[in-house]
Amino acid sequence: MQASEAQILAPNKVSAFAPATVGNVAVGFDILGFALESIGDTVTLHRTEKLGVEIGEIRGVVTDLPRRADENTATVGLVQLIADFGLPFGFRVDIDKGIPLGSGMGGSAASAVAAIVAANAFVGAKLTRNEILGYALLGESVASGDIHGDNVTPSLCGGLTLTRSLEPIDVVQIPVPEQICCVLVHPEHRIDTRNARQVIPKNMPLSTFVQQSANLAGFLSGCFMNDTELIRNSLHDLLIEPHRAPLIPGFRQVRQAALDNGALGCSISGAGPSIFAWVSGEADAKAVRDAMCAAFAEADVQSSAWLSSLNCPGAFIVEEG
Amino acid sequence: MQASEAQILAPNKVSAFAPATVGNVAVGFDILGFALESIGDTVTLHRTEKLGVEIGEIRGVVTDLPRRADENTATVGLVQLIADFGLPFGFRVDIDKGIPLGSGMGGSAASAVAAIVAANAFVGAKLTRNEILGYALLGESVASGDIHGDNVTPSLCGGLTLTRSLEPIDVVQIPVPEQICCVLVHPEHRIDTRNARQVIPKNMPLSTFVQQSANLAGFLSGCFMNDTELIRNSLHDLLIEPHRAPLIPGFRQVRQAALDNGALGCSISGAGPSIFAWVSGEADAKAVRDAMCAAFAEADVQSSAWLSSLNCPGAFIVEEG
Repeated sequence: MQASEAQILAPNKVSAFAPATVGNVAVGFDILGFALESIGDTVTLHRTEKLGVEIGEIRGVVTDLPRRADENTATVGLVQLIADFGLPFGFRVDIDKGIPLGSGMGGSAASAVAAIVAANAFVGAKLTRNEILGYALLGESVASGDIHGDNVTPSLCGGLTLTRSLEPIDVVQIPVPEQICCVLVHPEHRIDTRNARQVIPKNMPLSTFVQQSANLAGFLSGCFMNDTELIRNSLHDLLIEPHRAPLIPGFRQVRQAALDNGALGCSISGAGPSIFAWVSGEADAKAVRDAMCAAFAEADVQSSAWLSSLNCPGAFIVEEG
Repeated sequence: MQASEAQILAPNKVSAFAPATVGNVAVGFDILGFALESIGDTVTLHRTEKLGVEIGEIRGVVTDLPRRADENTATVGLVQLIADFGLPFGFRVDIDKGIPLGSGMGGSAASAVAAIVAANAFVGAKLTRNEILGYALLGESVASGDIHGDNVTPSLCGGLTLTRSLEPIDVVQIPVPEQICCVLVHPEHRIDTRNARQVIPKNMPLSTFVQQSANLAGFLSGCFMNDTELIRNSLHDLLIEPHRAPLIPGFRQVRQAALDNGALGCSISGAGPSIFAWVSGEADAKAVRDAMCAAFAEADVQSSAWLSSLNCPGAFIVEEG
């Protein structure tokens, strides 16, 4: 697009919301993730005559974030997008954080996705889904020190997603049986994503891989076949959870409480410390939620909890003007 | 069942056929496998007054097999079945081998499955699918020195199967798009399954496993979604093939010939040396078959080839009387 065309098309201000997400999903380390309902980050881009990106207000449950555009997950992709499109204007960026920092709920991914979804409105909505993912991944990599799509993809696309490949980007939407709900419990305990990566051995026994693969395959088959018992039998993490669980006070008891109350499976959300459970039916989901929070309380940990559909939407524009 | 009842119900002679199979399927080491059309082993059980199991004739493409019932893959499960049921008779077992030894085409699994499917007719067809699998796995473990279901399961069930778990046995049938055919090429070169296992490292990098998981997930999604391009993009073995390929003369050229002629994917069948390719459409499958055989010939290796549907039946009784 010509610079003049960009100028004419561009709105003055766009806000986009991107949901929190659960990455890994027990059986798909770095490749599977799903979006949560209601909770997420909102990023507002104000068009400025001044070129470049300036961070404006940071509000909500987190305010202590980097104020340099090349260090903040919400703006790193934006800087690249401006350069690629040769935009003749800049942005002031307000960030409303609904997702706690270091919670394992994909906060950095949501901010990165929301910013690019908003930015897309300034370039005539010309970005494809994969291009949006590409820019958002740049932001996410600043936070986690690694590029993987298990949070960015579901935050953009909604539902349960498989990020099969990042080069080239190849994303698959996985159906989830309608009746399954997610319970997400967030203990008041912060984990640094980089530290959570360091506790995972770089090499693992092939036999563990084989079992984990079998569970991944069973889980996906259960999703496609609408078979909740197959999902129940498959939703176990043998690879990562054993290494990360000790970082989360009360993890073992909380997981057991979920399973004792009928959860199909229960594991760590992303790098933790949040814990998710899949439950068939909303009534059971409420019982599981209460049992998980009670188990955290018994371990002297305060927690917040959410119930969510597993077929909820990805990022969207909230306001444009 | 009472001994007397068994005596009355039991036929005199039963023959069962079990198909050759391709294990691993590039992305599902030890868990995925599919059945081939037309080629397989036939096992005939003759009821004898003498208790126990005696091996009779061994015919076909392999004749040099163990003649002790506790060492032959076709009879190990049978010995256990006789003990479990307290059968008041024994068996003379004839084995017709259609599957070459050490070919990577699941010959030991097919013989083990055929024997138990035939034996089931002597106990009033009371065995469940999982019970048949359990007995057949006993035989398979004698051959490979390890228990895994990637050959036994598809040989019994037909089609493409996932063996999610062996304890307890949990098997899932995976749909395959109708238009996809399998090409299987068997070079005249024998590999010992135990040796083929020894070349695989006991530990692997987590990063390799993540990529392999992504391909497994993409492959299964492609099967469920009838998406041949997703199957094409996913059908790569990063975990096992790099270690086993050097055991197969001409492997790299044969694989390249398959891909150059439009194959969706091409990898080692089981422990090798047979090589399979998935191809969309029968016409293309014939071109791929010819190209693969020509590539083996250029590497001075004689080969035989088969075309097969991917939705072909598992083991069945051929004759009962």
